[in-house]
Amino acid sequence: MDGGITNLTTEERTNCQRLTPLTTANLLDSVDAFLFDCDGVIWKGDALIDGVSDTLDTLRALGKKLVFVTNNSTKSRRQYAKKFHSVGISVSEDEIFSSSFAAAMYLKVIDFPKEKKVYVIGEEGIGEELQLAGFTSLGGPEDGKKTVQLRPNYLFEHDKSVGAVVVGLDQYINYYKLQYATLCIRENPGCLFIATNRDAVGHLTDLQEWPGAGCMVAAVCGSTQKEPIVVGKPSTFLMEFLLKKFNIPTSRMCMVGDRLDTDILFGQNAGCRTLLVLSGVTDISDLQDSKNHIRPEYFADKVSDIIRFIQ
Amino acid sequence: MDGGITNLTTEERTNCQRLTPLTTANLLDSVDAFLFDCDGVIWKGDALIDGVSDTLDTLRALGKKLVFVTNNSTKSRRQYAKKFHSVGISVSEDEIFSSSFAAAMYLKVIDFPKEKKVYVIGEEGIGEELQLAGFTSLGGPEDGKKTVQLRPNYLFEHDKSVGAVVVGLDQYINYYKLQYATLCIRENPGCLFIATNRDAVGHLTDLQEWPGAGCMVAAVCGSTQKEPIVVGKPSTFLMEFLLKKFNIPTSRMCMVGDRLDTDILFGQNAGCRTLLVLSGVTDISDLQDSKNHIRPEYFADKVSDIIRFIQ
Repeated sequence: MDGGITNLTTEERTNCQRLTPLTTANLLDSVDAFLFDCDGVIWKGDALIDGVSDTLDTLRALGKKLVFVTNNSTKSRRQYAKKFHSVGISVSEDEIFSSSFAAAMYLKVIDFPKEKKVYVIGEEGIGEELQLAGFTSLGGPEDGKKTVQLRPNYLFEHDKSVGAVVVGLDQYINYYKLQYATLCIRENPGCLFIATNRDAVGHLTDLQEWPGAGCMVAAVCGSTQKEPIVVGKPSTFLMEFLLKKFNIPTSRMCMVGDRLDTDILFGQNAGCRTLLVLSGVTDISDLQDSKNHIRPEYFADKVSDIIRFIQ
Repeated sequence: MDGGITNLTTEERTNCQRLTPLTTANLLDSVDAFLFDCDGVIWKGDALIDGVSDTLDTLRALGKKLVFVTNNSTKSRRQYAKKFHSVGISVSEDEIFSSSFAAAMYLKVIDFPKEKKVYVIGEEGIGEELQLAGFTSLGGPEDGKKTVQLRPNYLFEHDKSVGAVVVGLDQYINYYKLQYATLCIRENPGCLFIATNRDAVGHLTDLQEWPGAGCMVAAVCGSTQKEPIVVGKPSTFLMEFLLKKFNIPTSRMCMVGDRLDTDILFGQNAGCRTLLVLSGVTDISDLQDSKNHIRPEYFADKVSDIIRFIQ
């Protein structure tokens, strides 16, 4: 069967059933690959969520393909594999699809000229993925401590060969980086504005949420009055990339996530089955809120519920 | 004649004539007060624009009231009066309406409780105006060098008595301030989100433009997914405040500015006459661009054109 983005019926999309022995059997039968979000699903901050390790082992034993899809752009795939290892889970780089990797792959797919440069607002992950893909980047961590001088006759110079600005989560966001990105986008002809994702907040620590890439991306929208190309969830760019890699139709993939507006919407946009877990930012009242129009096919307290009912 | 926000006819609004001896005489006859934007009109960075001093003297001699309306929130009215003095123009604090002052006046007008605090993303001006109006502020310059620690068990604490967040231009924007503001707006019940203005960029130096308050405001919109109350141009809050102070109808005021989307729109929203000067961010091609739907009543190269034709 050819891989492709497929459409589920409205009923399949809006059922929203809790995982039970019956629905779990149904889900496992109908799915060949599980796509997992990481923050709030696999871990919270640095703490592994209860039962994750056994769940992944069991799914692998059942022959399911596993893919870890994260909007967090601060790490590269290599750094993510290390993080998985540090929490006791063995995952290969090839199974990881981070938005930092997505940004680099986007530039590759569009044949972004190798002689042009990429300015980065973001952390290590983006620069590392760009380099692995053969691109030259500047900005990012190296501009974390730079300041500006607002005095007469001072000209803030920027590199005219920058042809793309990639914006992701950056805890070292500053005015220097904002001015640099703004000048590139406003003044370099045809300069692309790429956002790893637009998550408003994220569980950067286990105890609370922090401003996400959506904050930095909005700042650049505010100064440039331009809208970005988004490569992370809920954009389907990553899914199209996955489809070329695997030979599985999206209707036989299940997106597992803790966010309605990125994970579940991403899964639905791509025609995947969807499972919301309540171990992250969404609780049952958010799900059942009448203002919420994004309804997953299934929901469960946490990922380990997937194997709870297997005999 | 009672003061009030009046409406001009469509013809008066869309004429868009260059100042000539005839149109200047007409303008001077029909106006009792001139409202001047500062950056790009009075000065550019720290350099006074040619002929400004004589123009202001002549208009005062003709009995016109002068008001200086600026979206730049980095200074207080006191600091602005000092800046005017430093470039050789004598202006009293009472003639200055900065967006920092507007933020403080907004809180006063709505009877914001004095026991609540105000968190500031912005520079000195906002804190100083808040203090003069009797409010307690935190954040601003004192948080300019603060950093965050994204480690397990670290809880970023914020003051639960913050009832309003004011966001303005801040060249010391950082992740600490963004998290602080985001927590107040998301977690303190009823916390207000006030923007001094939403200018995308501004001439913070004479040689180029820099991200404006619109950049910081958008960042906070991005992390909170809330929209702010705007007190600077083009919001009419300042105009309503002016109307209470002067006994002049808005149709006998002329707004002079260099920006179509803030100054001219502000003037039009309030029912003022409008004069665009081409000494700042807008050039003749922007004005004549078919995509531009904001057309001032008059335009001129610079403010001194107002007195050029007076015999």
